[in-house]
Order: sequence, then structure tokens, then C-alpha cells
Amino acid sequence: MDPLVIFTPSGKRGRFPVGTPVLTAARQLGVDLDSVCGGRGICSKCQITPSYGEFSKHGVTVADTALSEWNSVEDRYDRVRGLKKGRRLGCQATVQSDIVIDVPPESQVHKQVVRKAATVRDITMDPATRLYYVEVAEPDMHTPSGDLERLAVALSEQWQIDTANLRLDLPVLSKLQPALRKGQWAVTVALHQGHNDRHERILDIWPGYFEGRLYGLAIDLGSTTIAAHLCDLRNGDVVASAGVMNPQIRFGEDLMSRVSYVMMNPGGDAEMTGAVREAINTLAFEISAEGGIEPAQIVETVFVCNPVMHHLLLGIDPVELGQAPFALATSDSMSLDARELGLTAINPAARVYILPCIAGHVGADCAAVALSEEPNKSEDLVLIVDVGTNAEILLGDKRRVLACSSPTGPAFEGAQISSGQRAAPGAIERVEIDPVTKEPRFKVIGSDLWSSDDGFAEAAAVTGITGICGSGIIEAVAEMRAAGLVDAGGLIGSAEQTGTPRMIPEGRTHSYVLFDGTADGGPLISVTQGDIRAIQLAKSALYAGARLLMDELGVDTVDRVVLAGAFGAHISPKHAMILGMIPDCPLEKVTSAGNAAGTGARIALCNRAARAEIEETVHQIHKVETAIEPRFQEHFVAANAIPHATAPFRLLRALVDLPNPSFNANSGDGDGRRRRRRG
Amino acid sequence: MDPLVIFTPSGKRGRFPVGTPVLTAARQLGVDLDSVCGGRGICSKCQITPSYGEFSKHGVTVADTALSEWNSVEDRYDRVRGLKKGRRLGCQATVQSDIVIDVPPESQVHKQVVRKAATVRDITMDPATRLYYVEVAEPDMHTPSGDLERLAVALSEQWQIDTANLRLDLPVLSKLQPALRKGQWAVTVALHQGHNDRHERILDIWPGYFEGRLYGLAIDLGSTTIAAHLCDLRNGDVVASAGVMNPQIRFGEDLMSRVSYVMMNPGGDAEMTGAVREAINTLAFEISAEGGIEPAQIVETVFVCNPVMHHLLLGIDPVELGQAPFALATSDSMSLDARELGLTAINPAARVYILPCIAGHVGADCAAVALSEEPNKSEDLVLIVDVGTNAEILLGDKRRVLACSSPTGPAFEGAQISSGQRAAPGAIERVEIDPVTKEPRFKVIGSDLWSSDDGFAEAAAVTGITGICGSGIIEAVAEMRAAGLVDAGGLIGSAEQTGTPRMIPEGRTHSYVLFDGTADGGPLISVTQGDIRAIQLAKSALYAGARLLMDELGVDTVDRVVLAGAFGAHISPKHAMILGMIPDCPLEKVTSAGNAAGTGARIALCNRAARAEIEETVHQIHKVETAIEPRFQEHFVAANAIPHATAPFRLLRALVDLPNPSFNANSGDGDGRRRRRRG
Repeated sequence: MDPLVIFTPSGKRGRFPVGTPVLTAARQLGVDLDSVCGGRGICSKCQITPSYGEFSKHGVTVADTALSEWNSVEDRYDRVRGLKKGRRLGCQATVQSDIVIDVPPESQVHKQVVRKAATVRDITMDPATRLYYVEVAEPDMHTPSGDLERLAVALSEQWQIDTANLRLDLPVLSKLQPALRKGQWAVTVALHQGHNDRHERILDIWPGYFEGRLYGLAIDLGSTTIAAHLCDLRNGDVVASAGVMNPQIRFGEDLMSRVSYVMMNPGGDAEMTGAVREAINTLAFEISAEGGIEPAQIVETVFVCNPVMHHLLLGIDPVELGQAPFALATSDSMSLDARELGLTAINPAARVYILPCIAGHVGADCAAVALSEEPNKSEDLVLIVDVGTNAEILLGDKRRVLACSSPTGPAFEGAQISSGQRAAPGAIERVEIDPVTKEPRFKVIGSDLWSSDDGFAEAAAVTGITGICGSGIIEAVAEMRAAGLVDAGGLIGSAEQTGTPRMIPEGRTHSYVLFDGTADGGPLISVTQGDIRAIQLAKSALYAGARLLMDELGVDTVDRVVLAGAFGAHISPKHAMILGMIPDCPLEKVTSAGNAAGTGARIALCNRAARAEIEETVHQIHKVETAIEPRFQEHFVAANAIPHATAPFRLLRALVDLPNPSFNANSGDGDGRRRRRRG
Repeated sequence: MDPLVIFTPSGKRGRFPVGTPVLTAARQLGVDLDSVCGGRGICSKCQITPSYGEFSKHGVTVADTALSEWNSVEDRYDRVRGLKKGRRLGCQATVQSDIVIDVPPESQVHKQVVRKAATVRDITMDPATRLYYVEVAEPDMHTPSGDLERLAVALSEQWQIDTANLRLDLPVLSKLQPALRKGQWAVTVALHQGHNDRHERILDIWPGYFEGRLYGLAIDLGSTTIAAHLCDLRNGDVVASAGVMNPQIRFGEDLMSRVSYVMMNPGGDAEMTGAVREAINTLAFEISAEGGIEPAQIVETVFVCNPVMHHLLLGIDPVELGQAPFALATSDSMSLDARELGLTAINPAARVYILPCIAGHVGADCAAVALSEEPNKSEDLVLIVDVGTNAEILLGDKRRVLACSSPTGPAFEGAQISSGQRAAPGAIERVEIDPVTKEPRFKVIGSDLWSSDDGFAEAAAVTGITGICGSGIIEAVAEMRAAGLVDAGGLIGSAEQTGTPRMIPEGRTHSYVLFDGTADGGPLISVTQGDIRAIQLAKSALYAGARLLMDELGVDTVDRVVLAGAFGAHISPKHAMILGMIPDCPLEKVTSAGNAAGTGARIALCNRAARAEIEETVHQIHKVETAIEPRFQEHFVAANAIPHATAPFRLLRALVDLPNPSFNANSGDGDGRRRRRRG
């Protein structure tokens, strides 16, 4: 018999062949064990604690040799980062005999605080599905015709609807006769008239006059978060918003990890497709309950997502998106039955609209941003940046719009950061550093107080202070630069150089201690030299993408910048400027668009013409491929310095009396090259 | 605990609440127990033999009181027809405690010999689905587009196909990328272009050039039999034919029994829908094996059926068809995905076309006969009669076509006949009676010999001689009339009146013994007065329907008669004439069309224009409703006599030197009235 594997605290158990990695066993059992890299031994988020000895409760005795021997990957990780005593890496340790495995809290995937929120925006209401009340002629034996055919005549005569190509699902057809008789030859139908559908479709039928309303879901299917808005299809009101984590995270945090998972695990795409569809069904149930409606009243759903999410939602193997030439299976918009996506929670005849993709790296989410922010209608030159795990960048005006995607990686989201964590309660999300004393103050998610405020300790005790999230690390790095703790090349100064004991040595480099909870058994939260490098890489990629589009358009400046996504909502433009994440632009010309992709989805949900419009727009957007463009690499290297751009730098230096230290003779190189090139 | 019910010989068992009829228990367990009337105590085909005592093998002891007491229905049946010792009626006896029940062979539903066969007919090939080989441009990172979009361009450029509204199911889309790469940027697609579909649909994709062929199924979904022809969609060749019994028979033999079953059993429609869909899947597997093809090569299916079968196939409650005004849920043709009908055996993306219904009693099967026989294009006045459990009747020429349905009942199919059985091995199917000696000779299904031929006894020993089927009883009655054994009123003469000892008394009437096997423990097969009455009722209904249409058209004769269905294939026109089943017409103008409905289905399968044509034709056919027409009743009564019509009667009398006895002063009335009316 195969060895028995028991996970605590969940109690989930199962038998697995000798040699099965613990992470694989956890996934198959649905155990909440984190993994950022998809089991490739890179992220070390899947740490577990094996237990040995006799467990009468579980009925097993665990031998010392129940897991495979410590391997070179674990060895290296322990040398470089240190692995707590008793810990193993779940993706490296394999099952040898019966074993009890504990998943420590920090290895569990927490339910994230979903921060995408609906923004208020006027949308002209013209949804694809509307209710029509019709009075239908009674059947006549002498001129026989079907009830459906008489309903079609009534729709045509009473509502001037072209019913020559009326369609309806068989389960809806089976409702017709009872509804007509119960309603005394009057019914209300939900009729779908798609902008690119040559058929009119009856999605549902009610006897007599139906008092209820129809609803639609606008879903922003992100790599990390699935956010939905439930909209009243009569007036566009958002009656409820809800979000869940994308359960695909357990197969790999970033897109390429998920593509790799499919490459290494045949059928892995179907696993991920099933997981995301199930999560959407759950979300639909929850949001219906929150909105106080029946899930069957949801008759429309619009999705926006990046190409990998797009393919995995549709059940298409995404491997082609992981390699040049990054070919999409299909790029056009899609109109289909919710049933085809297994969305059984909502009305069984509901329709789905998925916005078109722009290219293999620039998805329907970018199209939705374009629909929401309309760069193609802008009089002045606008740069739109939407940061998730990848950054989607749009640049243009009414004459021409360019787009690209830049692989910023997950650093902006708190991943690949030493004390990094997701934006969950307990995470440091705001940081300020006094330029004189070099002392920090911060805010944690779950409290409105600054760490310098009275009562903060009590407030923070509720959640604990557990790590630093994406917005926190960006602010921390920018503030460190502004306070002179980091030079233009990104090098952290020593305690001597900076004059603050918060600088502690870390190998040959230094770290800045934001919070030391070790006295109470808590974490030491610091910004390491590695963290600075990770942020530098991410912001360089973002900046290089924007610069590439500017080169393509032959411009050196933009008139305004729109920050969208989590970036726009939670990262202050000031700190983005200090870091040099975005090109030169007057600070007052930098605005936040909130969740522009979600807004685009809502527009497409409420307005059929908008669907046709974005399909047309997408064909006019010129895609620039960063992966094969030598200048991208050039810009990337040049953008390494903090800050690289002179205008906001000067501006901010004036504002905060910014010193400009240099701790290393080589650190200014990037900046220097940048200036030379532009001069 | 509920009583345990064990059926033998199947061994099927289950627990049922006290009071459950044995027939109900048998159905729920899927036990092969016949029922013609759907459990209404009419047909007495559900006879069972309860066993009492101790059954160690089954682990039960059966009390004397395990079934309910003998009831009045069983009492009456025993008095009138005689119930074998130990037998009970399964629909009347109810379960009281643990019981072992034997289903005797004659109560089991035998696998019928399917006699519908494809007739040879030229059909212009223009199927909705064709194969197209296309070479697709490779993806280009600099001008990104989806693989599907480039395939659409290739189809448009290389085949001049309008791909503006190309659709494909997600599972087909997921095949595209691997197929393109495996086929080195060439694929073969199965493209469906429906005659009334505004979308082009890709049903399947193969890498490179696909060597195989596409096939379609033409399915004649009858109340009793489901017959299918597997056709090569390139040349229309029928590569295999197969048939199965319609499993809905266990819910009631005739249509109204099935409608009653739904009325009395909520959810009964879903049960019947599931049963017929499962049978069609099985049939599709079998016919694919017979044709030596993969079921996935079947990409099209056409159905013809009566309205009740139509609704039950679609999953629509048929109750409205059981009561005036007989309203169909939908009358138009239907184009849908095979998936919607649960037809999972064939290609998952296969399309289904269902011919339109003419009215609540005149279905897509009648439309298929019209498509095959084209009365609307006839120069002379043609009467087309398609007999199943209901008769579909078409009358007209190129100026006008009328249609009606007549409730002939199942007598023509051997049901409601004392020695009747389905057309299965052992059934008497042909009968001749010597007009001088009054001695019969006959043929049984399974042997080519007449009973008067040498070697017949040995040949018949293989199957036994078990009963008489539909064509047998019709010939027997006609021959009895021709031999002077029955008078014009339908009364059977006594042994004295007819001079043959084969006449035996049966109450106050007489029976004619066709075969007496009682000496060897076999059956006594006779034609009773009740049998003659049943045939008289059936033929009167058929004749009255035809006459009603003739009245409507203002004609007294027709130029020609086409016999279709089982009727046309197995009943000789001569005997139909003698019986007076059809109106006056020169014998040489009576032709058989074979399975015209099946032929119509094949035409619609192979030719898209034919679909549009029959949809147009159906709107021009004028439906006459027999159920509410007083003249139908009048014709029905008038048509009771054998024969009622003078012309063939005289003709045949001349041919066979027919005597014209009258055994009863009243018996000639019908005939007399008929003659008076026409004179």
C-alpha cells in the first residue's frame, strides 16, 4: 500500500506513491499550502514541518526516513536565506513512508483583502439582454402553429423585434407552454440581442409580468484576484461587489509559473481551468447573496483578463503563450453560453462576453483599460499604466495608440521580497521616513493609525505586524531614497554612512530595519539590498516598456499619466515618481483611474455599442513586443538608477530637501548613461 | 423496511413501498415486462407469475398475501379471456410484502425484427457539413493575431467562405493550436453551413489533410421502433442501417398511453426523454461499428418523428398534445447541437436538424413523407397513407395538399388482437385461405416456407409458431372475407354456415382457427370476432381520414395511392383493398413507397435546400383536424363494412370468385348506407 500522508491543521489525508513531492500531495488533497513558483524550488513559500514519532490520534508511526533526504536546493536555500529548524521545502521533500506534515501559518495562502473597487462612472445603458412583456395569441386547432411561433409573432408585432432567427435553449423552450398557460397567454421574456450575434435569443421566460430585474456580472479575472461587480442591467447600478483569490495560485503565482506547470504536468491546464471556473461559480453565489438576488437573475457576464487567464478560462492550453511568437488561439472577442464555461451558478442560459485580446502578452484586461480610459479619443498624449503581476502599458492619442506588456514580476505585489507578503491584514502598506532622524513610521492593513500615533500598538495587536505588501515596499524604497539611505544606484548605506543604527549588516550589504518584533517572538521586518534590487528590476521593466512606446511614437515626454489597477489605487504618484517607475511628467498631470479594467468590463456589460467599439479600437492599437525588442533591454538597463529622471527628482528634492548621497562609485552609472543618451 | 421484490429470470430486485403495482416496480428496475396500454389495465400484456414459499437462493420467504387480492379488473379479464392458472396482471397486483415474481416469456418485450429499410433514391448531394483543407499563415509577433483569426482568413481566401460569423465550440477551439503545429500550418476542418443558420461553425479540426470522411445519421424515431441510416455525407451512400426498439414502450405502447403516463407520473417525461436519448446513443454506437467508422465522424443527425416523440426527444412535456387544441410547444424545424439532446456518442460538436411539424397530430414524420413523395409537385391527385400506430394521411397535387392524422390504434401492428404479437420470429405474417376448402396456409417470420410446403414443420420448430403480427391479421381478415367466412358487416359465420370445422364457438360468436398447437403444449392461434372488430375500427379510422380529406378537396376518387411505412412495405395492396382500408382506386395505381419518412430524413441529411423546401412546403399544407370534425365520425361509422367500396370489391370478386354471404340481417347496414350515400 502507498504511504499515508496526513496534513495538519487541516486533517486532510491521502495515500501517495513513494517519491511524491509533499507539494504535489498537498495540491491533490486541496491542502492550503502556498507556492509562488509552481513547485520549481525558487520561491520557498511552500515550507512545511514534518512530524516524527507515534501519532495515536492519526493511527500512524512516522519513521525518521519518512521524507526524502535534505537535497541541494534545500541546502542552498538554508545557506542563503536560512531555513527554520525542522522546516523542509514542500516541493523538494518527497514522501517515502507514512508521514504527518504540518503547514505553518506563513505557508498557508491567506484570503486576500480584495482592494479592487467599482468606481463611479456614467455608462449609457444599452445592455444586450432586456425584459419584454408580450401577450401571445392562443392556439387554434384550425390554423395550427407552435406556441413558440406565436410568441415570435407577438414579439415582432408588439416590440418590432426581428424574430426571423430566434433561438432558445431546450430547457427554456420547455418552460414556454406552462408559462403561457399560467400567465393566461402573457409572458415576460429575457431577450438577448448581441451586437455581433445574428440570432436573437430568449434566455428565460416567466408567466405574466415578471416583477424582478435582470443582472449582469463584470468580472476582472486577475492572476491573483478575481473581482466581480454585480450590476443591475436596467440602470447599471453596482448592487454588490465581491472578490476571491484566484485558486490557480496554488499552481504558481505568476503567469509563466502556471504555463510551466502545464508544460510539466499534462492535464494541468484542465486542473487550472476547473479550479478557476469553480471559484467563479462560488463568487457568483456569494455576490448574489450579497446583492439579495437569485443567481438565476444573472443573465450576462463580461470577462476581462490577461491572455493566460483568458485561455485557462476557456479551457485552452496556454503553452503557446509561454514562447515566441506568443500566438493566441483566438484574439477576437468571444460571445458564448455561460454553460460552455461551466458557469452553472448563474442563469443556465446566461451569455458571456469576453473582450478581445490585443496580442499574446496584452490581453482583454488591457483592452478593457482602453475602453475605460479611451486613449484613442484623447486630445493630448496619454500614458496609461496598469500594474498587476505584468504591467500593461498604453500610449497614444486620437491619432495613434500603442500598447505593450512588461514583465515587472510580482515584486510590486510584495512577492520576491524578503519580508514580503500579500496585501492582507497585518501587512505594512504605507511608510514614511523622517529625512532628518531617519526614523520610519508606517501603517498596517487593518488599522487607520500610523505607527507613531497613540493607540497603534493596541490596534496592531489585533492583526499582528506580519510583513510588508507591495505598496509598502515601494513607499519604503522611495522614502529610503528620499531620506538619503539609498544612493542613485540603489545601494543601501551602512550605519556609519547614514548615521542611523537601523542599518544592520547583511553579508556584504546592509538592511534597513522597519520593525523589530523579535523581542515578542515576532518578525524582523527589514528592507534588504535584495529587496531594493527586486524593486529596481520591476520598476526598470515598467519604465523601459513606457520608454519603448515613447521611442516608437518618437516622443520624449508625455502630456499626462494615468495609473490604473492596484498601482493606481494604492501606490502614491509621488513615490512612483521618486522611484522612477514612470517617465517625466508634471506631478499634477498624474491621475489615478482606479480599477480601469473592471470599469471597462462594466461598460461592456451595460452597453452593446461599447463592445463593437472596443473590438474596432483593438484592431487599431499597435502592439509593440518587448520580448524581442533590443531597445527594451537597453532602456531596462538604463532605468536601473533611482531616480533616473531628472525633472521630478529635482522637484521632489526641492520638496523634501533631498540629499543626494553616493555610497558606491559605480552606482551612478545607470543614471549617467541615461542622461548622456537623452542629452 | 419496504418489501423486497425479486424478478426472475432477470434476478433484478429492489424494495418498494406497500401498494406499489408490480408493473411500476418492474419499470423502475428496468425489468423487461411488456405493457401495451401503459398500465391502464386494458392490454393485459403485463401478466406475471408470483411465487410463494421459501426461497433460500433469494433469502426470502414469500407469504400467500405478498400481493394484493385479485381485483375486479383481473376478474373481468379472467371471465372474458381467461387468465392462466397462477397468473396475475402486473398493473393490477400490488406489492404487500417480500415477493418473488416470474416474468413469463410472452410478457417479455422481444427485440423486434426491424423491417424499415433504406430505399434507393437519387439525392442531390449538398450537405450542411463539408471538409475543407486550408493552409494557414504562421503567427507573426509584429502583427499579432489569433490562430483562429488566421484560419478564418485562410477559409475566406482559399474557399471563398464568409467567415464573418464563424463559431466553434471551446473543445474544438482547444484542438486548433496543436493541429496547426502538427499539420505544419495546414489543417482540415469540418465546416457546417446551415440553411437557416447565420453562423458558420467549425465542428472539428484535424492536422494536415484528413483522409477520413464525414457521416450523417438519418433517424426515423417511431413510437415502436427507432431506425437509423448511416450515410456518407460525400455521396449519400447508406453504409449501414440499424434499428432498436423504442424503450419508451415500457411506459405505454401508443402515444396517448405515454402522454397519460406523464400526466399520472410527474417527471415521467424526463424519464422517457432519458430513455430514448440513451437508446439513440446506443444505436449510434452500433451503427458506427456496423459501418466501420468512428462515432466522432458522425457530424450531422436528422430526426423525423411524430409530435409526441418530437417533444419527448427535446425534453418537452407532451401533455398539451393530449388535449384540444393540441398545441405544439414549437412547430418549426429545429437546428441544434447534438449535445443539447445528450447525444454524446457521436461527434461532440455534431449538429442536429429536426424537420418541422405540420400540427399537433401531424408531425415531422409526415413532413418527411411529404419531402420524399412530393405530393405538392404531383400532376395527378395522390393519396399518401403512412401507417404506424397513428396513420398520417396526405392528399393533394401541385395546387393544394391536405393532411390529417387518424387514430388507427395499434391493431394494424398486432396489438389488441387475441393472438396478436409484434413482428418478431414465430409470428404469422402472411395468410391465404382456400375459398373452396376454407383451409388456411401461412408463413411465419423466420422462414420463407408456406405452412403447406414440405419441411415447414422443421423450419417452424426453430422459432415456434407464437402468434400473429399486424400484416398477418390484416391478411387473415381479408382472406376470411374473400373466402366467405365473414360477411360484409364483419360477422364470422358458424361451422354450419361456412361448412368448415375450423369455426369454433366463442361465447355467442365464432372464431376461425388458423393454427392449433395445443396438442404439443403450443398456442391456439385463431381470429376471433373481437379481432375482426378491432381491425374494422382501425381500417374505418384510416378510411374515414382519407375520405375526410377527399371531402375537403371536393373529390370522390383519387388518381393514385401511395402506401408508406410498415403498411406499404409489408401489407399487400390487394388485401388492403379487400378490407376497404383505402378508397377506390385502380389496383395498378396503388404503389408502395417503402419507408418514406426515413427517405425524407435522408434527403434532408444530404441536401440543405431540401430543408428549406420542406419548411416552405409545410406552411402550405392545410391541416384537417379529425378530432373535432363531425364528418370524420360519420365516415368512420359508414366505413365499418368489409368491403365498403364497390370498385375493388367487384374487381377482386371477379379475381377470386368471391361469394357474398350474409350471416346477419343487420350486418350489411354499413355497406348499404355507404352505397346509398354515394349513389
